[in-house]
Amino acid sequence: MEDIKTIDKGLENAEIEWTKLTTIDGEKGILMYGGYSIDDIIAHKASVEEIQYLFLYGELPTQNQLQAFRHDVEAGYKLPDYVIDIIRKLPRESDAVAMQMAAFASMAAAEVSFKWNKETDKVVAANVIGRMSAVTANVYRHIMGLPPANPKPSGSFVESFLKATFGKELSREEIDAMNSALILYTDHEVPASTTAGLVAVSTLSDMYSGVTAALAALKGPLHGGAAEASIAQFKEIGDEKNVRNWFDKNITTGNKRLMGFGHRVYKTYDPRARIFKKYAESLVKNSREAEKLFKVATALEELGIEKYGAKKIFPNTDYFSGIVYLSMGFPLQNNIYTALFALSRITGWTAHFIEYDEEEERLIRPRAVYVGKGLRDFTPITAR
Amino acid sequence: MEDIKTIDKGLENAEIEWTKLTTIDGEKGILMYGGYSIDDIIAHKASVEEIQYLFLYGELPTQNQLQAFRHDVEAGYKLPDYVIDIIRKLPRESDAVAMQMAAFASMAAAEVSFKWNKETDKVVAANVIGRMSAVTANVYRHIMGLPPANPKPSGSFVESFLKATFGKELSREEIDAMNSALILYTDHEVPASTTAGLVAVSTLSDMYSGVTAALAALKGPLHGGAAEASIAQFKEIGDEKNVRNWFDKNITTGNKRLMGFGHRVYKTYDPRARIFKKYAESLVKNSREAEKLFKVATALEELGIEKYGAKKIFPNTDYFSGIVYLSMGFPLQNNIYTALFALSRITGWTAHFIEYDEEEERLIRPRAVYVGKGLRDFTPITAR
Repeated sequence: MEDIKTIDKGLENAEIEWTKLTTIDGEKGILMYGGYSIDDIIAHKASVEEIQYLFLYGELPTQNQLQAFRHDVEAGYKLPDYVIDIIRKLPRESDAVAMQMAAFASMAAAEVSFKWNKETDKVVAANVIGRMSAVTANVYRHIMGLPPANPKPSGSFVESFLKATFGKELSREEIDAMNSALILYTDHEVPASTTAGLVAVSTLSDMYSGVTAALAALKGPLHGGAAEASIAQFKEIGDEKNVRNWFDKNITTGNKRLMGFGHRVYKTYDPRARIFKKYAESLVKNSREAEKLFKVATALEELGIEKYGAKKIFPNTDYFSGIVYLSMGFPLQNNIYTALFALSRITGWTAHFIEYDEEEERLIRPRAVYVGKGLRDFTPITAR
Repeated sequence: MEDIKTIDKGLENAEIEWTKLTTIDGEKGILMYGGYSIDDIIAHKASVEEIQYLFLYGELPTQNQLQAFRHDVEAGYKLPDYVIDIIRKLPRESDAVAMQMAAFASMAAAEVSFKWNKETDKVVAANVIGRMSAVTANVYRHIMGLPPANPKPSGSFVESFLKATFGKELSREEIDAMNSALILYTDHEVPASTTAGLVAVSTLSDMYSGVTAALAALKGPLHGGAAEASIAQFKEIGDEKNVRNWFDKNITTGNKRLMGFGHRVYKTYDPRARIFKKYAESLVKNSREAEKLFKVATALEELGIEKYGAKKIFPNTDYFSGIVYLSMGFPLQNNIYTALFALSRITGWTAHFIEYDEEEERLIRPRAVYVGKGLRDFTPITAR
């Protein structure tokens, strides 16, 4: 149909907003949040709350600001009972992201008179970030057959979440890895999930509905599903010694796509992948299975770069992240790794919504090119 | 910030897809579905199922095709118990559209391995249309404090829905009005709701998630809320004799926007508004309140056209539709009129999703223009 009229497929050249949040230098492989490179952020062991604050307020917080912000986030931890009931009414074999979606839709139901308001938006967003922690913990617990549990204020977003989720303390190393994972997935400009959410809130729909729309997009295999697809591929290969064979049979022949490789924006090694690899390397000692898969992953990476490196196709953020989650005890099932992606990306989503509301405030309404039938007469059904 | 770089605000000039479904001649005031003008469709008393079929299959159905299609729709009427439970866990004062959203998100939860497939998509969509009828009836009944009830196959989409909703038969005239209302809201190219849904399914997310994202956008006051805003304005005016005064005080002065007037696309009288007006005119005899509001509406319309007609601003589809719903017994509360919009638009949404999947199949991922800070050094919190 391309001869009829060229459209901007996938809106690849459309610019939907101005942003101060995130920028990517795809050539150099630099990802910056508010002007800070993620390498620098991780090297300084920033807490994810500092980054959440940076996204909402534009600057890194002082100790006092951080304390007040943590309080706003923690105010979201106690889910209304009916939200927990709704999560637990869902079949346990459900998709974890859709479960988050149902929980957020149920909270949107209470928003009968939501108004976007510069004075309160950031506090609402902090609250929504806290809600996502509680929703994710409860989704995990329901899937695992555990009783409900909300996070409790602990002065650490990561520790509160992990304690509620697993019902026990994790090691310092695991907490640090989770903190970094949450930072690394915080934002990435305007991928499909953020775009879907922006379209929703451009109608002045409420913050929870915006998150629900974003989750609906994240659920798709071309978006949030990549971390699970990468590790599923390592599992399929099974053992380091099968890598060369599997690669020749599936990738060299073009039968399969190499999952976790390549990105529309990066033309070099994704800086997030490098950080995830380091964490994976040190955490796999906790899990025999993860250790095995990590060996597969690194051997496969080598062959992948050999084949694709010259075409500027390298591992992306999803390549090693699943191994980190698996090492920490999150099982590869129910799309849980994508739900963890959402627990991080909620910050980027809400920050973009607020930014759009404050700067653009314009209903998003593109056009379609009509290629259908011209005016014709209606024939009654008896005459068809 | 406009000096930094021009962006396409609201994506007003972006063309997101090719479509064979709907086209609008905004100058002449013609809305066509698959080449049939809506005036012609309504004049021939087509059933809404014929139009649903037209959207999914591209042609009007024969009697046999229609019968098979109705069967596919009716297969969606019996909601899984857990979906009804979830609707009924929501507070009764909830927003009806968000309640639909929670129900669709909960059905998305079961879609752990959804695949878009030309062989089955249309049957799935018919099923989803049936689901929306059952969800909307149950949302209404929960709000009203009535026990749950799914529509029962009756050979008429409208009658099955109304019977389940109100628990009684409505008059032929009311059934016809509802049939027309469902036809009139079926599709309107790519407004924000359809766009949000398209972005979601462009990631190959499932059909239910696409609907959930669309509902999240529809909930916004700049989109689905217009029918309720129009009638709320008539209620505020209260009586025909207050119209002139209210108009001078609120509209002439520019203090308020005239709700239900104007549309980004139509530069003349919205053809749908004309049809809704006729139904309103004949149905208001059923309801003293609706009758009163209709008198307010027509008097206000006259003043509105006097002031705005020369600027090509006329009543749009939402101006009279609320009066039609009110006359039939739907109360003006909980955003129910917008939920009825969704019951109709579900057809347009699913048809666009399928069309996009079959023709475009491209992840929607626009760009943002970065206007934030350049690279700066991270300062540890103790040094801030």
